[in-house]
Amino acid sequence: MRPLFITFEGLDGSGKSTHLRAVAAHFDAADVPHIVTKEPGGAPLSDAIRSVFLDPRWGDMDGIVELLMVFASRRQHLLEVIEPALASGHHVLCDRFTDSTIAYQGFGSGVALDVIDAVDELATSRRRPDITVLFDLLPEEARSRGQSAKRRAADPAAGGADRLDLQSLEFYDRVRRGFLQLADDEPGRIRTVYSGGPRERTTRELERALADILPAR
Amino acid sequence: MRPLFITFEGLDGSGKSTHLRAVAAHFDAADVPHIVTKEPGGAPLSDAIRSVFLDPRWGDMDGIVELLMVFASRRQHLLEVIEPALASGHHVLCDRFTDSTIAYQGFGSGVALDVIDAVDELATSRRRPDITVLFDLLPEEARSRGQSAKRRAADPAAGGADRLDLQSLEFYDRVRRGFLQLADDEPGRIRTVYSGGPRERTTRELERALADILPAR
Repeated sequence: MRPLFITFEGLDGSGKSTHLRAVAAHFDAADVPHIVTKEPGGAPLSDAIRSVFLDPRWGDMDGIVELLMVFASRRQHLLEVIEPALASGHHVLCDRFTDSTIAYQGFGSGVALDVIDAVDELATSRRRPDITVLFDLLPEEARSRGQSAKRRAADPAAGGADRLDLQSLEFYDRVRRGFLQLADDEPGRIRTVYSGGPRERTTRELERALADILPAR
Repeated sequence: MRPLFITFEGLDGSGKSTHLRAVAAHFDAADVPHIVTKEPGGAPLSDAIRSVFLDPRWGDMDGIVELLMVFASRRQHLLEVIEPALASGHHVLCDRFTDSTIAYQGFGSGVALDVIDAVDELATSRRRPDITVLFDLLPEEARSRGQSAKRRAADPAAGGADRLDLQSLEFYDRVRRGFLQLADDEPGRIRTVYSGGPRERTTRELERALADILPAR
């Protein structure tokens, strides 16, 4: 099998990172050469750019400034990590890629899709993965998982989250619809897995979705 | 007079920054509202981006990655500093702008001019200054000034600079030709001042070049 560029997409809380690690474990067990990487970041310069645009000091960042930085970071990640790994015969398992930019900045924040396309064309010649697994679930479900995670990490008594949460539910609903639209547009590349139920069921769905590339146990 | 966006361009060592300060002093003396700013940088986020792309850790940076970062920084500088200053009635005196990107990255480093144009269109809608002063001199003259500056700043015994200098003379010659080409293309905007001679002569040439906007003494 030729080396494949495989991305894992979905909302935070959709389980994509957990399932990515499970696929990597399959590959490990069968000695299939692969690397695991992620966006934003993925290379030292990309990480440096990421830490600039995630810095809360700048407040609400202009959408186009953010887009230029995201794609500068992505091009570096492609040139330095992804393409060399593929060229040396490794599958690349990548947590988020351009679909996330289109879903979050485009559908979520309202940056014009043709502007995203134009920057994408300049930065990556519209590079797309060979296979993308989209982990789909309702924003409410993603939020309740995200919130449990937050509760584990931080003080649950910290108030003021409710209004934000209502705004973000609408935002995440737009992001989810963006992902589903992309999956509709490219059914040959994007394989959608429902991840709202128990993890075991999602695992079985994922194994069916990737049956053509997962090594036999 | 409506507020003007005025840039100062040329090689390092061309005296542009010194003469920019002299023009600012004219404006100060006549109480003409103005701000002084510079690229790369010019705003806190722009400075943060600048410090990432100037970091020597990355080695030779891909031309398009650099371009995306330069224009992210420039858009932020425009949105946060330049346009608000103009809108509130201040002249803007800016050390370097897009002409430098075209001359250095384009003519100097060989990044395709239509790629620069495309990023410029996305990031700034090809925003140009009202007036640009180009300080022109031979790369050899700029170098000898730059070297004197370096000798004042660092250990003159540090070797290994000769081969680099030969390469850079060819590079700076391409950059200079780029600037002159831009001045040929836009004679209405770009006013060229010869800055290879004594500073007093350049000052007189500059005062003639900006006679329509400099306040009477």
